[in-house]
Amino acid sequence: MLGQMMTQPLLVSSLIDHADRYHGQTEIVSVETDGTVTETNWSEIAVNARRMASALTNLGLEPQDRIGTLAWNNRRHLEIYFATSGAGYVCHTVNPRLFPEQLMFIINHAQDRVLFFDATFIPLVAALHDALSEVQHFVLMGPRNKEAAAQVPDLKFYDELLETGDAGFQWPELDEKTACGLCYTSGTTGNPKGVLYSHRSTLLHSFASNTRDVIGYSAMDVVMPVVPMFHVNAWGSPYACAMSGSRLVLPGPDLHGEALVNLIDTYGVTLAMGVPTIWQGLLAYAAACGTELKSLERTVIGGAACPPSMIETFRETYGVDTVHAWGMSEMSPLGTTNYPLAKHLKLPPEDQHKIRLSQGRPPFGVELKIVDEDGNDLPHDGETQGDLMVRGHWVLDSYFQLQDQELLQDGWFATGDVATLDPDGYMTIRDRSKDIIKSGGEWISSVELENIAVAHPQLATAAVVGVPHPKWDERPLLVAVKADGEEPSEEDLLAFFEGKIAKWQIPDKVVFVDALPLSATGKVLKRKLRAEFGDALTG
Amino acid sequence: MLGQMMTQPLLVSSLIDHADRYHGQTEIVSVETDGTVTETNWSEIAVNARRMASALTNLGLEPQDRIGTLAWNNRRHLEIYFATSGAGYVCHTVNPRLFPEQLMFIINHAQDRVLFFDATFIPLVAALHDALSEVQHFVLMGPRNKEAAAQVPDLKFYDELLETGDAGFQWPELDEKTACGLCYTSGTTGNPKGVLYSHRSTLLHSFASNTRDVIGYSAMDVVMPVVPMFHVNAWGSPYACAMSGSRLVLPGPDLHGEALVNLIDTYGVTLAMGVPTIWQGLLAYAAACGTELKSLERTVIGGAACPPSMIETFRETYGVDTVHAWGMSEMSPLGTTNYPLAKHLKLPPEDQHKIRLSQGRPPFGVELKIVDEDGNDLPHDGETQGDLMVRGHWVLDSYFQLQDQELLQDGWFATGDVATLDPDGYMTIRDRSKDIIKSGGEWISSVELENIAVAHPQLATAAVVGVPHPKWDERPLLVAVKADGEEPSEEDLLAFFEGKIAKWQIPDKVVFVDALPLSATGKVLKRKLRAEFGDALTG
Ligand SMILES: Nc1ncnc2c1ncn2[C@@H]1O[C@H](COP(=O)(O)OP(=O)(O)OP(=O)(O)O)[C@@H](O)[C@H]1O
Ligand SMILES: Nc1ncnc2c1ncn2[C@@H]1O[C@H](COP(=O)(O)OP(=O)(O)OP(=O)(O)O)[C@@H](O)[C@H]1O
Ligand SMILES: [Mg+2]
Ligand SMILES: [Mg+2]
Repeated sequence: MLGQMMTQPLLVSSLIDHADRYHGQTEIVSVETDGTVTETNWSEIAVNARRMASALTNLGLEPQDRIGTLAWNNRRHLEIYFATSGAGYVCHTVNPRLFPEQLMFIINHAQDRVLFFDATFIPLVAALHDALSEVQHFVLMGPRNKEAAAQVPDLKFYDELLETGDAGFQWPELDEKTACGLCYTSGTTGNPKGVLYSHRSTLLHSFASNTRDVIGYSAMDVVMPVVPMFHVNAWGSPYACAMSGSRLVLPGPDLHGEALVNLIDTYGVTLAMGVPTIWQGLLAYAAACGTELKSLERTVIGGAACPPSMIETFRETYGVDTVHAWGMSEMSPLGTTNYPLAKHLKLPPEDQHKIRLSQGRPPFGVELKIVDEDGNDLPHDGETQGDLMVRGHWVLDSYFQLQDQELLQDGWFATGDVATLDPDGYMTIRDRSKDIIKSGGEWISSVELENIAVAHPQLATAAVVGVPHPKWDERPLLVAVKADGEEPSEEDLLAFFEGKIAKWQIPDKVVFVDALPLSATGKVLKRKLRAEFGDALTG
Repeated sequence: MLGQMMTQPLLVSSLIDHADRYHGQTEIVSVETDGTVTETNWSEIAVNARRMASALTNLGLEPQDRIGTLAWNNRRHLEIYFATSGAGYVCHTVNPRLFPEQLMFIINHAQDRVLFFDATFIPLVAALHDALSEVQHFVLMGPRNKEAAAQVPDLKFYDELLETGDAGFQWPELDEKTACGLCYTSGTTGNPKGVLYSHRSTLLHSFASNTRDVIGYSAMDVVMPVVPMFHVNAWGSPYACAMSGSRLVLPGPDLHGEALVNLIDTYGVTLAMGVPTIWQGLLAYAAACGTELKSLERTVIGGAACPPSMIETFRETYGVDTVHAWGMSEMSPLGTTNYPLAKHLKLPPEDQHKIRLSQGRPPFGVELKIVDEDGNDLPHDGETQGDLMVRGHWVLDSYFQLQDQELLQDGWFATGDVATLDPDGYMTIRDRSKDIIKSGGEWISSVELENIAVAHPQLATAAVVGVPHPKWDERPLLVAVKADGEEPSEEDLLAFFEGKIAKWQIPDKVVFVDALPLSATGKVLKRKLRAEFGDALTG
């Protein structure tokens, strides 16, 4: 016997309808690609999304055709999110920081029919144009631009295309399992792989994001997603904030500390999300300029391990609560967030702070387990580490165009991360399985060593990789970037580890570099460091 | 093309599994029917739910058979919630405060196969036993009890039945649209009608409840649902709190001010929910005993209009934020909750307080509109009032066993409430359509008059009803209950309205009564008042 309740599909279009209806006048601040600032609101975004949906439909696309974007966080990108998915197409956000060959591969592999791009990428698109054989319509996200038209054949312009659309467009009623979005992984450990989200998975992920202990966007918040809209949909914030009716500040292309601090202070940002590397720049500028970041209440930091020193600076200097989060493109991305439990609130402050360092616990909708090499379950004792496996409502089933390859193990997805789980479900990422250092049968977490190193006052940043060693198989190597005007010695740096970690875990050597190689989403490319410094201990 | 994401049904069993897995040690305090207090936790609840599910299955029930409960808010009731729905039966919570004939009607109408009941109701069940012809198993919620066994033939005992069950019971994988729960409306305006919830509607309602601007239960909260588990599932809190892993304090049968204040202060309750009449008692006792209700952060008040004076007392005297909420059994029940928007936070405090008085705005998943008598849409201008219509993921489609009667109008459910909607979606209930007073072609809100009357220091409580009038069709009559030891005069009371409302809206007359007739959920039965005082202005 079925329940006697209304049933409506869970669709992305219903999110923008909700924001339009109940949060129409709520402001959205958009830093445009040329640096100017536009103020719009959810109703204007909704109207434009319907017009663009209508315009795209008039182009004669097929259901679930992929529509690519190469764009920063701005209002047109937001409109495209809802226009494409709402109309039954697949919004394929492409990471413009990838190498041209990777871009080409991804756009062709996804068979993008339309490609929207910001003015920043005119030269890039002009260069790739002929190789992007699947793309039928190139659309510059802005008004008509003669220079661009001269570079890209048959170029269309967003603002003109919009004019051709009908604001009275009716969203189609789709099966909620229909594909709505496509995003490739960051390519940190190898080639990016496509994850094809469904309307249902996106809506359930939005609900979960909005629960209080996950992110809990509120209509009282002014939210600044610093994490790019081309990186796992800015962690799903465009969808979740339409659901909650939050104010948005979309920071555009300039993610330097100064620009971000100014946006926070000018628009009263209360909640901002991003990867640790971004916050390093922000904190450096904030200290230099002396701002108190008065409006800021919470930061959500994830995508890579958040160093304890960063959490502490936010808390002690700025009174900002940092929520450490872990996720993956394959998980839409939210896997865990670190909020305390009722019992923790009775602990002394230092103990509470310690609890906040891990990657946190899973929301309803995600299950975690750790297993050994043979797939046997390992205990959740906070000490045993193993391969982290996940399953849930917003976890992928198979990679895009690889549906024939059985990816799951007994219904679980292997994350490629190595973690511990404590009895309350708090998870600590020890390392990526490809990055963990195997020294004489023992495992050393590169992350743990990095957390110590970056707290050294004479270092700007640092990474640790395992490199071949004749006796121990692998030993840790510290790759360090000196802070401006500082000259730390190798001995000093290695001595800094003493007492903070077991002696045998201290790196064998330090090499200094000017900068770390970063991936397109700002993560350290350890495979490059291993390639470059592989013979540091043997050569 | 479908997305390539895992799909799992949204099932009630997955809620208790989540609480078991990630919040197992989180305490649940249960005041038992005999007044003793038990401390248990989510894992023990989960184990017992699986055992009871197994025991029920062994009784040989059919899928989606109804299982009735006549019980207070306590741990066994919580176990029954998850055992029944999880195993594929329908949890039918019956309001024990109904009249015996109503109880009989409802239990037979629902065809309950099993009836669980608390010791309070032994005499009631003994008296009704023979008339409850559909019930095959009567189960007293406790250990073996000889006296009870002597009164109710073939009586089973919860604790013994539990022993027969297997803690390793595996939840069945059901279609998420399967029925999971049944609850009859309060019977304020007529006979109670059954609402048959589905697993899907219950899970989506839980997600929405847990979003920050709805209720936002947190694992940091100590939650006390004062609203009964037999009244729209305690507003869905057992499900939503399993999802969030909140601590629970289940207050048992005694909902007097003293008992509630003691529970709040003893167990550090941070969040409590209930109808206004309950909070009247609590506030009176809190004032008398001088507690500061230190731990309490938020109250959610709904089910009937929350008087502004109550919101103010909570805020000014106790520093407690009151969230005014509106809902219906037909809506699982959450329809609106009153949290501010970002723009409101910049207003002066008095203006912010005013905004908090209305019933609030709908979360994603619920849509509201108001229509005139002919079903035409009315403007959302905050002034025009009309019949309130709703639709959404957790709104009923038809009443139980009345699926043949077309209930919806064009997909919308008519709530029977009269409301205004402002441009931001904030809704103010003006009255029930059956209670609004039609005076010479103008409408007078009985709720508005009551809000003024209850703020009079010499009144304990009051209600206003429309009674026939020779010239104006209907005129308002104030039915007042004097505060202890006070002797207000009719003139005083009527003078109290002056300047607070248009002159022609002031009631024509006052009648004093010792108590107001209340429904089984604590709402004033205005139909009784109208029957009793119908000739007050004509007789
Ligand atoms: N809070 C965190 N702490 C540590 N690592 C994290 C955290 N959040 C995310 N990560 C890392 O990021 C990974 C997910 O990143 P993403 O999906 O962007 O692509 P990627 O794994 O970096 O790239 P690829 O899969 O293509 O190699 C996780 O598997 C984990 O290794
Ligand atoms: N915050 C509120 N302010 C005013 N009225 C409220 C509020 N919350 C709920 N209500 C009233 O309660 C009604 C829903 O109550 P419920 O479903 O418990 O049954 P009932 O309507 O009282 O009984 P019946 O439908 O059997 O007559 C709403 O339709 C509304 O009239
Ligand atoms: Mg990866
Ligand atoms: Mg009703």
